[in-house]
Amino acid sequence: MQFLHPFLRTIWVLIAMGTPLFHFAQSALTEDSLLIRRIYDEALARGESYENLRTLTKDIGHRLSGSQSAFEAMEWGQTVLKDYGADSVWVMPVTVPSWTRGDVAHSNAYGKNGVNTLRVTALGGSVGTPNNETIRGRVIEVKDLDELEELPKDEVEGRIVLFNRPMDPILINTGAAYGGAIDQRGNGASAAAKAGAIGALIRSLTHALDTLPHTGALRYQEGVHRIPAAAISTVDATWLSRQLQEDPDMEVSLQMNCQAFPDVEQGNVIGEWIGTEFPNEIITLGGHLDSWDIGEGAHDDGAGIVHTIEVLRILKAIGYEPKRTIRFVLFINEENGNRGGKEYARIAEYDHAHSDRRYVAGLESDAGGFVPRGFRIDGSDEATELVQSWGSLFDPYNVHQFRRGGAGVDISPMKSLNPKPVLVGLSPDGQRYFDFHHSAQDVFENVHKRELELGAATFAAAVVLLDQHLPSLDKVD
Amino acid sequence: MQFLHPFLRTIWVLIAMGTPLFHFAQSALTEDSLLIRRIYDEALARGESYENLRTLTKDIGHRLSGSQSAFEAMEWGQTVLKDYGADSVWVMPVTVPSWTRGDVAHSNAYGKNGVNTLRVTALGGSVGTPNNETIRGRVIEVKDLDELEELPKDEVEGRIVLFNRPMDPILINTGAAYGGAIDQRGNGASAAAKAGAIGALIRSLTHALDTLPHTGALRYQEGVHRIPAAAISTVDATWLSRQLQEDPDMEVSLQMNCQAFPDVEQGNVIGEWIGTEFPNEIITLGGHLDSWDIGEGAHDDGAGIVHTIEVLRILKAIGYEPKRTIRFVLFINEENGNRGGKEYARIAEYDHAHSDRRYVAGLESDAGGFVPRGFRIDGSDEATELVQSWGSLFDPYNVHQFRRGGAGVDISPMKSLNPKPVLVGLSPDGQRYFDFHHSAQDVFENVHKRELELGAATFAAAVVLLDQHLPSLDKVD
Repeated sequence: MQFLHPFLRTIWVLIAMGTPLFHFAQSALTEDSLLIRRIYDEALARGESYENLRTLTKDIGHRLSGSQSAFEAMEWGQTVLKDYGADSVWVMPVTVPSWTRGDVAHSNAYGKNGVNTLRVTALGGSVGTPNNETIRGRVIEVKDLDELEELPKDEVEGRIVLFNRPMDPILINTGAAYGGAIDQRGNGASAAAKAGAIGALIRSLTHALDTLPHTGALRYQEGVHRIPAAAISTVDATWLSRQLQEDPDMEVSLQMNCQAFPDVEQGNVIGEWIGTEFPNEIITLGGHLDSWDIGEGAHDDGAGIVHTIEVLRILKAIGYEPKRTIRFVLFINEENGNRGGKEYARIAEYDHAHSDRRYVAGLESDAGGFVPRGFRIDGSDEATELVQSWGSLFDPYNVHQFRRGGAGVDISPMKSLNPKPVLVGLSPDGQRYFDFHHSAQDVFENVHKRELELGAATFAAAVVLLDQHLPSLDKVD
Repeated sequence: MQFLHPFLRTIWVLIAMGTPLFHFAQSALTEDSLLIRRIYDEALARGESYENLRTLTKDIGHRLSGSQSAFEAMEWGQTVLKDYGADSVWVMPVTVPSWTRGDVAHSNAYGKNGVNTLRVTALGGSVGTPNNETIRGRVIEVKDLDELEELPKDEVEGRIVLFNRPMDPILINTGAAYGGAIDQRGNGASAAAKAGAIGALIRSLTHALDTLPHTGALRYQEGVHRIPAAAISTVDATWLSRQLQEDPDMEVSLQMNCQAFPDVEQGNVIGEWIGTEFPNEIITLGGHLDSWDIGEGAHDDGAGIVHTIEVLRILKAIGYEPKRTIRFVLFINEENGNRGGKEYARIAEYDHAHSDRRYVAGLESDAGGFVPRGFRIDGSDEATELVQSWGSLFDPYNVHQFRRGGAGVDISPMKSLNPKPVLVGLSPDGQRYFDFHHSAQDVFENVHKRELELGAATFAAAVVLLDQHLPSLDKVD
């Protein structure tokens, strides 16, 4: 088989995959099917996404907005996009926040049975403890913000609030379970401060019972006293909750020296490949280059970055010539501000108003390097139907989900453009995502080579199908 | 939300999952949808499959047919099925082969650059080296059996054949890639012996570049001299192949003390739950209790065993009353003989001939504990269409594949029954399966709790849908 001509081999593979013959006759030989097959072949047989991810995660490491390593990642991104043949590569300047976790995040529980260390880490953006010294207070556990609000003031005053509502295990979509628990992390600190608390511990957002704190951004409410807030591992949160049943007077200490600094100018790294037929119509695809500052940002969102870069490599390797202009964007600052995504959309709006450039589609990969399951679509009914019509093309690759909503954070500000672009998010399997998310375990070793490659191929196929089949604005006008 | 009545909660969850309202109105409130939702809730919120797998893999460990630990696993299986409320539990006696790997599997490569140890393990059923002593010979590398056959006799005589064709990376279905490479492992030893070789090394069947030998059964051809055959890790096979380019006179040694013993009586463990409406119609579901003797048989097929047992637990927990009789079968000897599956079908044929018992459906889980993707179906067109009609019921659970063929090894001998049962295999995602398959890495730690639970729920839902909707034989008659 390995000696067959590539075209014959492709057909052979379609047959070997069990593609039903009637289907084969009807559509599998169409240009789209063959193109997609070549994309997957290239990704799986000669893929470079995995080695690129190794470089990004191991040579550069994590890369929080504003950090030195984020600058290094921007340099690397420009080099790789140039090497793979982008027509031009530039940086779109973006002013990003700068915050450091510091080197201290200590928490102890003091109770009848002695002292126990709790595994915690600062939530992103948290203030340190006052003067970086230890605070200590009784613990009050709540399940949600409403429960906190209903508590008498003297039950919260001077205390440290433990927000301890687990992600709901029965939701199949782990992202929905995450969304159902994230209010604690985002708003818990300010809600606790308003009730008089001196600090907050938030149960890590993961289904896993593990000993890792999982960080993530908090949002301080304007005009509310800023108190320090930390993520606590699910094992420790569960333990603490059980202890409190028998020992309600338990106290918890917290010490952190995280710190905010003045904003820094970094930027979105952009590679552009000019289209042959509609060069003024721009298909944007990307992931975010920044990551949290623990782990290596491998799934979140190293995977999306190497997916994006691999699309360029694959399409060049198979000799594809895009009709439309394709922009490969390595967004900055998704994790704590989304200023990269917002700036990109701001420029796009300006372009729409002052030039003939039209941002017709945006694609994002920011849900991990796991086996691809489908797409999330934000767009008009017509555009959504176009994407949903791909079902039979993707069925041989086990890609079946074509659902509305949640295409991606970086591209979402483009929703305000007129005409509205279609936004498409790659949707990998999510069952393992929150095991690693925002934790020290989000490392290269936890990304699977074939799954990463399948994601890159699926992402590339979506780009090509949009490039081929989006109704041209020229025709609409 | 956690205070809602279970029924309201179920509806809430359907809405929260984004089930489109029109779809919701049309079918999500049907009995089937609600039943399936309760099955998944039970599996995900109160699942016991993961802890049962821990017991099977950690307390009992691997369990090759004929071994003491296989006896222990049979005991454990009976206890658990009784504890979960099977009406009756028994062992169907099966005579199984007995073979031991021994404690020696050494292989060295001798070349211009010195001596290098190769990581090997015996293929299941291999003879040891003569008198358990070291054999040594020049290496001849081939890609497949045809290439071996075309070689002049003096290029093979007295040598050790290295079969080194990798699994094809471009096949999306890793099982198909496995099937495309397995001839080397199954038939390589006898083909090499016929050509005069003294031993065979077979590239491990995995996409991973790893240092683990992956074992599996070989089949000696009748009347052909039996030579020892070992799996060699993909890293070592790749290395050896490169060395041979520059150093074609390299030699390899091999020493193994594996050994065959007289057959042993073990058996299929069967739990039965009598149906309320058609007790003579039997739905069989199962996995195989035996495993290879390295690793812990966690994915292969501990997962299928705990899936099977969990179906019983879930259906009892939600108060389900089966119309048909359900048989939970822990098959013996899938790995090296499938005598358990064959004996089960033999008894079923006898029952069909001499009683009113009819084996109307067989379900199997033997493809790992990964996130469920769908089903493989062997059956009449009518039965296949019935299973394929479940698409919208399973869509909320991301289960989309309803493909023909390959339902499972243990249940496949039931194809000969008349009337033919419908056979349905659970089809989990396969991208990682061969990383662990038949190797020391097939351990509990490599099974993911939620993925295992989703598999159990999917398996249970299929059982219930068949129980509810199979056309009754009574009506047919």
